[in-house]
Amino acid sequence: MPTISDLLESLRRGDHRALGRAITWMENGHPGARDLMAKVWPHLGRASVIGITGSPGAGKSTLTDQVARALRAEGQRIGILAVDPTSPFSGGAILGDRIRMQRIAADPGIFIRSMATRGALGGLARATQDAIDLLDAAGFDTIIVETVGVGQDEVDVVSCVQTCCVVLVPGMGDEIQAIKAGIMEVADLFIINKSDREGADQVEREIEAMKSLATVRDWDPPVLRTIAQAGEGVQELLAQVRNHGAWLRSHGGLARKAKERARLRFESLLAEAAVRRAKALAGPERVAAAIQGITDRTLDPYSAVQGILGEV
Amino acid sequence: MPTISDLLESLRRGDHRALGRAITWMENGHPGARDLMAKVWPHLGRASVIGITGSPGAGKSTLTDQVARALRAEGQRIGILAVDPTSPFSGGAILGDRIRMQRIAADPGIFIRSMATRGALGGLARATQDAIDLLDAAGFDTIIVETVGVGQDEVDVVSCVQTCCVVLVPGMGDEIQAIKAGIMEVADLFIINKSDREGADQVEREIEAMKSLATVRDWDPPVLRTIAQAGEGVQELLAQVRNHGAWLRSHGGLARKAKERARLRFESLLAEAAVRRAKALAGPERVAAAIQGITDRTLDPYSAVQGILGEV
Repeated sequence: MPTISDLLESLRRGDHRALGRAITWMENGHPGARDLMAKVWPHLGRASVIGITGSPGAGKSTLTDQVARALRAEGQRIGILAVDPTSPFSGGAILGDRIRMQRIAADPGIFIRSMATRGALGGLARATQDAIDLLDAAGFDTIIVETVGVGQDEVDVVSCVQTCCVVLVPGMGDEIQAIKAGIMEVADLFIINKSDREGADQVEREIEAMKSLATVRDWDPPVLRTIAQAGEGVQELLAQVRNHGAWLRSHGGLARKAKERARLRFESLLAEAAVRRAKALAGPERVAAAIQGITDRTLDPYSAVQGILGEV
Repeated sequence: MPTISDLLESLRRGDHRALGRAITWMENGHPGARDLMAKVWPHLGRASVIGITGSPGAGKSTLTDQVARALRAEGQRIGILAVDPTSPFSGGAILGDRIRMQRIAADPGIFIRSMATRGALGGLARATQDAIDLLDAAGFDTIIVETVGVGQDEVDVVSCVQTCCVVLVPGMGDEIQAIKAGIMEVADLFIINKSDREGADQVEREIEAMKSLATVRDWDPPVLRTIAQAGEGVQELLAQVRNHGAWLRSHGGLARKAKERARLRFESLLAEAAVRRAKALAGPERVAAAIQGITDRTLDPYSAVQGILGEV
């Protein structure tokens, strides 16, 4: 096992294995995780962070790969975090994911990691935030966070990236395309992908109608068209991302997003730590007795929790 | 405002308005919420709870309505909780939802409620559990929890219903149909809906392949076909739900699910209460200072949380 300073040194050099290990440390709550984060913390904030979100089947992965390739061609080093609380049930899709990773992994200038931590409260959002910071510390220029726009965790994650792109496709129908309202509200850019399909105009009209209903924001999110499979519209997308970045800098948006991100990190870490602390103070016997009492209906859950926290 | 005992009395009579108000109390953390739950708690555990989960577009709502109608024809009183962390962005879908509710609401033997609480950690799972209990207390015979199978919250919710039905449809493609692996693992029944469409056999083969990869369970989940729009297969579905219920009773499954549900309720309430407590003890100034420190990068988030919890 490497020491924290070994890991830190390899990480700062951009070593992929060290980066992978450091992310795993953060995910698993390794004893060295806190120290590692404390050590990299003062040096962060250099990387650009782009969010790409949308329904399954919208072509997010292909679009992400195209954006990564275009930025790579400019000499940037790119980190990709594929955040997916859903996990496809067919072996085929998982295989496709692996092939994608292997193909990308051949380029030392691109680091890709699938984030699918489960279980811990706020676990996925927290682990993704940690991974963004570690990629930043490792000197990656742009970090792309790709996510299915469904859970609250994901809204939290994309709400504090620099530029949040929401990807839609023609002809999928309202219900399938349903995106969490929270994500629509934080969209900085709408992308109609597979825009050579019939129905692109209708999707655009729907987006405009939805925008007209939403709270007025200082930034009016533009609507772009792409055909990710063919690489069409990718340069325009990047131009709009830069345009939005410039707007953020001139309107105090970066500071606002940094504060929002700090708040999110604080909240999710506090929840994890407060529960751990409360359980440790109560001890496993009292926790088990409380759960048994709820099961037997001799104790209601609200009173059980007050009983556990009462002496904390 | 009604007193707790007024509300309790109307609730026990099955009054829809009282039920709606009680669910809102639990969602919003009304001061009377805890007492209300403590008072109904000893009387619960009578209702059957069925989970219906699947991708957007799988026809869950139609299937839920058909199941509710069939059970209603047997004289049962039915509660429906539509749990949806996603929120469609088109006005059309929202309108459709309202029309559905109005149609169902005309029958006093069916209560329907949309659960979409956001924000609080564990909020949606916790509020749904509370609503199940209140429906149980109000004497509903069967409670159907309908949910898009995507977030961890939803896996938590359906993992402790009595019978969890996972709905798939032919021809949607792997990626769109991707269901969280956790939900596949807790499926008690697979339903191929819209089974008159091309590709039903292929979906069945995929389900069987997936089952063969999964951990062996004592219960082998059957695969059914339905055409919810036409009401086809609904009686067979109900027969299988009863079959699974009988199996649960003869294999200690109800006790196991009750314990799992108790654990979930305890965990989600503990998280909410522990965070509230920690923030109250630290005070708003120290919380704000911690978040500012993280924003300014003078304080890393892990140390900030330790600082807040240190004195608790």
